[in-house]
Amino acid sequence: MVESIAVVGCGAAGATAAMQARKFNRDVTISIFDVEPYSQYSRCGLPYTISGKVARVEDLVLTPPASWAGMKVQSHLSTKVTSIDTSSRRLTAEGVGGSVTVDYDALVFATGASNTAPPIKGLDKKRIYGLKTIDDARALSEEALKAKRVVVIGGGLVGMELAEALHERGVAVTIVEFLPNILLAMIDSDMAEIVEQHCRERGLTIMTSTAATEVTGHETPKSVIVKNRVTEEVTELPAEAVIVAAGARPNTRLAESIGVQVGTTRGIKVNDRMETNLKGVYACGDCAEHVDFVTKKPAVGGLGTVAVRQARVAGINAAGGDVRIAGIVGAKVTKLFGLEIASTGLSEDSAKRYGVELVKGSVKGITKPPYFIGGKDIKVKTYYLKDTGKLVGGQLVGVEDAAMRLNVLTMGIQTGIDAAQLFDFENCYAPAVCDTWDPLVTSADAAKKRLKM
Amino acid sequence: MVESIAVVGCGAAGATAAMQARKFNRDVTISIFDVEPYSQYSRCGLPYTISGKVARVEDLVLTPPASWAGMKVQSHLSTKVTSIDTSSRRLTAEGVGGSVTVDYDALVFATGASNTAPPIKGLDKKRIYGLKTIDDARALSEEALKAKRVVVIGGGLVGMELAEALHERGVAVTIVEFLPNILLAMIDSDMAEIVEQHCRERGLTIMTSTAATEVTGHETPKSVIVKNRVTEEVTELPAEAVIVAAGARPNTRLAESIGVQVGTTRGIKVNDRMETNLKGVYACGDCAEHVDFVTKKPAVGGLGTVAVRQARVAGINAAGGDVRIAGIVGAKVTKLFGLEIASTGLSEDSAKRYGVELVKGSVKGITKPPYFIGGKDIKVKTYYLKDTGKLVGGQLVGVEDAAMRLNVLTMGIQTGIDAAQLFDFENCYAPAVCDTWDPLVTSADAAKKRLKM
Repeated sequence: MVESIAVVGCGAAGATAAMQARKFNRDVTISIFDVEPYSQYSRCGLPYTISGKVARVEDLVLTPPASWAGMKVQSHLSTKVTSIDTSSRRLTAEGVGGSVTVDYDALVFATGASNTAPPIKGLDKKRIYGLKTIDDARALSEEALKAKRVVVIGGGLVGMELAEALHERGVAVTIVEFLPNILLAMIDSDMAEIVEQHCRERGLTIMTSTAATEVTGHETPKSVIVKNRVTEEVTELPAEAVIVAAGARPNTRLAESIGVQVGTTRGIKVNDRMETNLKGVYACGDCAEHVDFVTKKPAVGGLGTVAVRQARVAGINAAGGDVRIAGIVGAKVTKLFGLEIASTGLSEDSAKRYGVELVKGSVKGITKPPYFIGGKDIKVKTYYLKDTGKLVGGQLVGVEDAAMRLNVLTMGIQTGIDAAQLFDFENCYAPAVCDTWDPLVTSADAAKKRLKM
Repeated sequence: MVESIAVVGCGAAGATAAMQARKFNRDVTISIFDVEPYSQYSRCGLPYTISGKVARVEDLVLTPPASWAGMKVQSHLSTKVTSIDTSSRRLTAEGVGGSVTVDYDALVFATGASNTAPPIKGLDKKRIYGLKTIDDARALSEEALKAKRVVVIGGGLVGMELAEALHERGVAVTIVEFLPNILLAMIDSDMAEIVEQHCRERGLTIMTSTAATEVTGHETPKSVIVKNRVTEEVTELPAEAVIVAAGARPNTRLAESIGVQVGTTRGIKVNDRMETNLKGVYACGDCAEHVDFVTKKPAVGGLGTVAVRQARVAGINAAGGDVRIAGIVGAKVTKLFGLEIASTGLSEDSAKRYGVELVKGSVKGITKPPYFIGGKDIKVKTYYLKDTGKLVGGQLVGVEDAAMRLNVLTMGIQTGIDAAQLFDFENCYAPAVCDTWDPLVTSADAAKKRLKM
């Protein structure tokens, strides 16, 4: 019987695991540890503390430190777990209050991920930032008062959301993206081009296929030297501050130190109970490698939604339960200058990586019937397995109702529908809302023909 | 082999049936008939020609009369089918151009529905309107220039959409609803009350549990006499014009004249090929009675989405194909003064009528995370069969993202998910868009507990 649980990490995953463990088991002792002084907060909300769409950084704290006592969870914040002894099942941590030792029967790793540092010269200066923590966001918010020009290295989700936020604060922002388009971990090139044009029209400078090679300057940045990977042209971009948003890597060192296995994605390998190779040791959230929903190949979520769902399963199981989770669909969404960008399941890129052949349904639609004033363009792509016609992915870009339409596709993927079933989808209709044949349905129709269904 | 098809009715259903028949079979002869001079147009769009959200009435015409020739379909507009001889398979019609006779192998009834006339004294005046046709919309649009006060009898979808449109044209509108709440064919009372309050705050007068008994006046209305059905209080509502929007009844007389059977809902009975009791005779759209998706009990759609989906099946089968359709889920949506109102599947009311026991998940949520400025209230109710936990219905009311969220529920109903599966739904998440646990998911969680899943 499990009498005590230790949770390492008090982000969305760790906090959820602890709360779900408590909900499931009223008697178990639960301890939670985090190096940060803050308790669970929304990391995804950080860019919006800079633009002011989140009023105060403190608003992001979803589980205030004081609330743990009420849940009978011993929280150890500003505290770093330094060692774990698996033979005696004892964990030691060092924190502001000195050293702490707790015994555990079950252990949950929710150690998240850390920003990766790309091979760029001169990153060891002041006024060079990443965005991962509340402290980072505070620093960037102050920076926005000073810097006139900022270069963002990396046009992924975090980079683009930060670029928008700084632009809204009046900063001139240049995004430097190594790949041929921004957001390629999320959407196909043709979709990314729509986003790039939208953002450029609103004032962002976006340089794609471009490598940042050096940040010049003495104590602080003077410029960023970039090189176009196609033309090899070298450009110097003046900047008083630089942001590095070049992706993240799972934090696994502590887990590996006790013999927990790490998979091909560098995340901690777990089964569908979120249990690692060690019995009673679980992992969840950005540090964990589970499987892709469709292909069952190893995958790291890197998403808040996935983290809390995995954490629920890890928490309940750590507390003596037995629940399971299906793989990661990977529904992603963001909004940049009013444009919704959404993707779920497989993309052309990830399908190639997984060695899966897809058939596509692609539609340029309008969000409302053509006769109704004010409908907006929406581009929809849906993806199906070539051999079975099963829906396995989708992407949408549009200034309204892209994200919520994506949810229909995710539900379809999770329930295993094929193109014919998506074509039979009875979408709701009203002139002020949407048309009789939703673009989702017409995209399925296009694919159905190609699939000869 | 089918050599010729006659389609009676050129609304959304008839036109779609004809087009799908042509798409499926390039050689078959197709004739289409309608008493109206217009070819397929959006009836649902009519209220918006009054408010100006549809710029011109003509914009509603989706298939211009001239386009039929290009599809090799003989269109007979302003033409009434007067008799059908089933032994010789010959149809006769009278129109502007005189008498027409065509032979048919397959026949499609897409005769729609007509507004019902409630038992109210004095409805035989000028300036008393229904809204079913383009001519009705034109008349009402002119009326909006004259009338200061209009009474709308019936607070269903059409009545409410018209009331909004007239209000936006500066008319003082009173809605008189016989039942305890408006929109009860669509949503539960508690949801309807949110809508009523929203509309009242924006200037509509809504009288519920109120019967209109008489329209006074000589040639045109002077007032409407109404009686509160609870207090029995009688009130006289001054009005220069009156709109009757008290529901519709399937047009089946012509079909019945040749022996086509009508069901308990008064619609033409069809099987899942949209075929009536007579071989080669099909019906689709508002005149047809198919089955409810969940209960398999007789049901009339009364929805544009259902009409075109049924019509596709009827058209293909009439042209020699063999496709089927599942029952009617009945996804409905409208937008009143910016408030989205959406429902799908069974409601408390319809479940009672069908003799089905439901369990409910009800949630008052916010469309975005609590820390993000600008999230809006949204009320979500999801319904599950008590014995199996299957999702069978849902309702949403909110000023953003209610309709598109509904689509997820409809997809869930169509794929047969239960509360546990909706709880496992991986909704997309971003601070600017929605939260990690969507209100749909939390409503499933609430129901799961009640269902002991």
